[in-house]
Amino acid sequence: MISATLLSHLEDIVGPEGLLTTPEDMMTYGYDATLPEHQPEAVLIPCTTQQISDALRLAGENGIPVVPRGAGTGLSGGSIPAAGGIVLSLTRMRDIVEIDAQNLTARVQPGVVNADFQAALAPLGLFYPPDPASMKACTMGGNVAMSAGGPRCLKYGGTKDYVLGLEVVLADGEVIHTGGRTVKNTTGYDLTHLFVGSEGTLGVITEITLRLLPPPEAKRTMLAIFDELDDASRTVSAIVGEGILPTTLEMMDNLLIQCAEDFTGAGLPRDAAAILLIEVDGFEEALGRQVSTVEQVCAKQGVREVRVATTAQEVDDLWLARRTIIGAVARYRPSMVLQDVTVPPSQLPEMVARVVDIGKEYDLPIGVLAHAGDGNLHPLILFDQRDEEELAREQKAEAVIFAASLELNGTLTGEHGIGLTKRKYLPQALNPREMDLTQGLKTLLDPRGILNPGKIVGGNGDQPA
Amino acid sequence: MISATLLSHLEDIVGPEGLLTTPEDMMTYGYDATLPEHQPEAVLIPCTTQQISDALRLAGENGIPVVPRGAGTGLSGGSIPAAGGIVLSLTRMRDIVEIDAQNLTARVQPGVVNADFQAALAPLGLFYPPDPASMKACTMGGNVAMSAGGPRCLKYGGTKDYVLGLEVVLADGEVIHTGGRTVKNTTGYDLTHLFVGSEGTLGVITEITLRLLPPPEAKRTMLAIFDELDDASRTVSAIVGEGILPTTLEMMDNLLIQCAEDFTGAGLPRDAAAILLIEVDGFEEALGRQVSTVEQVCAKQGVREVRVATTAQEVDDLWLARRTIIGAVARYRPSMVLQDVTVPPSQLPEMVARVVDIGKEYDLPIGVLAHAGDGNLHPLILFDQRDEEELAREQKAEAVIFAASLELNGTLTGEHGIGLTKRKYLPQALNPREMDLTQGLKTLLDPRGILNPGKIVGGNGDQPA
Repeated sequence: MISATLLSHLEDIVGPEGLLTTPEDMMTYGYDATLPEHQPEAVLIPCTTQQISDALRLAGENGIPVVPRGAGTGLSGGSIPAAGGIVLSLTRMRDIVEIDAQNLTARVQPGVVNADFQAALAPLGLFYPPDPASMKACTMGGNVAMSAGGPRCLKYGGTKDYVLGLEVVLADGEVIHTGGRTVKNTTGYDLTHLFVGSEGTLGVITEITLRLLPPPEAKRTMLAIFDELDDASRTVSAIVGEGILPTTLEMMDNLLIQCAEDFTGAGLPRDAAAILLIEVDGFEEALGRQVSTVEQVCAKQGVREVRVATTAQEVDDLWLARRTIIGAVARYRPSMVLQDVTVPPSQLPEMVARVVDIGKEYDLPIGVLAHAGDGNLHPLILFDQRDEEELAREQKAEAVIFAASLELNGTLTGEHGIGLTKRKYLPQALNPREMDLTQGLKTLLDPRGILNPGKIVGGNGDQPA
Repeated sequence: MISATLLSHLEDIVGPEGLLTTPEDMMTYGYDATLPEHQPEAVLIPCTTQQISDALRLAGENGIPVVPRGAGTGLSGGSIPAAGGIVLSLTRMRDIVEIDAQNLTARVQPGVVNADFQAALAPLGLFYPPDPASMKACTMGGNVAMSAGGPRCLKYGGTKDYVLGLEVVLADGEVIHTGGRTVKNTTGYDLTHLFVGSEGTLGVITEITLRLLPPPEAKRTMLAIFDELDDASRTVSAIVGEGILPTTLEMMDNLLIQCAEDFTGAGLPRDAAAILLIEVDGFEEALGRQVSTVEQVCAKQGVREVRVATTAQEVDDLWLARRTIIGAVARYRPSMVLQDVTVPPSQLPEMVARVVDIGKEYDLPIGVLAHAGDGNLHPLILFDQRDEEELAREQKAEAVIFAASLELNGTLTGEHGIGLTKRKYLPQALNPREMDLTQGLKTLLDPRGILNPGKIVGGNGDQPA
């Protein structure tokens, strides 16, 4: 419990405009894009690293949990204050501190929205590849804390591949700087990547130094329509086998095509078993041959049709279904769980087939959405969480999906993190010594266990799940 | 001291062919590519992970240091047994366990030589970019332990960007597996990158899972000759500013051109102030325009001449000087220290100018060798270590070079690691809390301090330096 005295000290640190305590506010900060909910006792919205340092010191002295939060778009419950305490919203720290075009680097505060950052870079002829589906809302701090991915990961890698350095406030309020401003840096242990993907459990990220790229000068977008789901799956690794690494290689099955069409009316073929959305980019001269190769590979795998967008409008139309699908499925069933398993791409056909079977076995509609090129599958389980029996079936199906992924040399999560919702599965992916080491790192960095307790390891995480 | 009983137990683990104890052998394993030397008491050459596990358990119980070693080509003293004990040579663990062309991954044992791995990949149409200058000798385990770089880092990133997972024997002999086989993986903390670049101080790497790429189908190699060193430096960031990320962008100054010509007679211009060796790669169609752009940028910066290789032989000739320079300078002076500072590329002209001044101030020939595109400068200090006064000047010059790099937002090391030789400078790069955290990680993973003591932090590292 946070005492009135402590609240008053917290208000001294962030000012009255930086402290929320009303029931409506607690409700607002009690959920993210997953099912579990749990309310905090207070929300702090600091403006400076110093305020965060002061707040953490105070929280530590009083044993109060602190849960860092960006835009709350997370898909593993990482920002839910599972043990109550304080939500530390980083959304007022939203300065793009520096864009250094000469050195292809930038420094941003954690509350900068991904799409705003991209928009600031574009006119300077600079490019930051990571593009989570939630990029119009999600923050850079959240992206780094969760090691977020996105469609363009296939060619360009994920958030972790672009983080050169961090400013971090540790659990005791002390501030450290990891890494630096250069791409090459082997000075001591890689403290930077200890914090990337640590989900707010090891420290609070207050500034991020990022590597940028020159933007690709051109791209081509293609839509490949398949009559068989398996043909689409097999096409994925066949394309990479031809020496082409597309920028994106996205897959949607018939259920999702139907949902997207209901929502957008964009003209997708309702009778198709699956579509692949394929984009290649680079120097203009090199694109024609890549498009032809992709078309040939698709033909060999029995594609019905390949559409190549010729205008910006057509590109937008092709992407519309993919971009809106998460919202579109809400019309179909009231609840949705978006899973995030990743398998070696050659196992994609097998994993997709198993997901389809699991849907039948547990009598649940499961849409197949995938960043297929890197084997990152997002089974979209549709149900009604108010129906206990249906919820129980969903949870069983989920457990079987995780087991299948691990059996196929895959992972529990590719880009959404462990958070609250996958914590109980972690011992299936890590052996006891690996779990010990994980707990050891947590204890080293946060001996009082105040930072985002219950996420990944430690704390009271099972409480609300 | 290793007792006869302990030696006999070690021999039981690795067999008689896996244990060396003669004075000649101890001398052989007592140095690397740096100046310090210190002999071990025994050398173990295990064949299996189990043998390493058994040996570490035994060493831990007896408090004996264990220093993992690949080919001993390191440039920071990382494999020198500074506190005596056991050198653990991984050179007999040299299986390429698996090359998975469909999933663009491979698994290798630590003793596989980088060039042998590249040679095994090429006929399968696969590509592993990291190419340390010592690639014909250095091992993949050493590359991962030191987070090695190379010329191609500029476009493709370094070793750390290709490691997907590791098998590691911890100090207590327990075996863990980090990461996995997929590019996307956010399962718990990033244990993989805790070990990448940890220089054998946190665990012994026994298997490495690597990401591969489709190879670029073509490349163009250019040699740009400059009459002014500063013009060459400024050309570097100007090229990147044009939206081109060359595969390599290497720089050599007049001193090194002279040394290389004495050695190779390859036809470099002895009167040039500097040369840039520039390579672009990718799809054939896209190369011509990149070459023209590079030529135009060079012209704008006052280049004397740009030579474009038109045959494979010409490409080899252009690279000959760069590849042989480290050996070539041995004809000039008996001792050589190759430093490894990295600055933001825009600071390269300033850093190069300072290195030239430092050479004058301390009256030492310093060659300027640089992976210039990413700001990674290798000042090559030439002297005679047998001359104490000269050695003292070298050490002063070195300290001033490090200070200059840090002042220009650069690093102590870009790709050679801290090891033994840069350990005393580490507190200049890390604040006290960052040093504490570094020591905390070391203590968590190696509480008895047996793993490569004296490297990065902890142990008796100052002994022989």
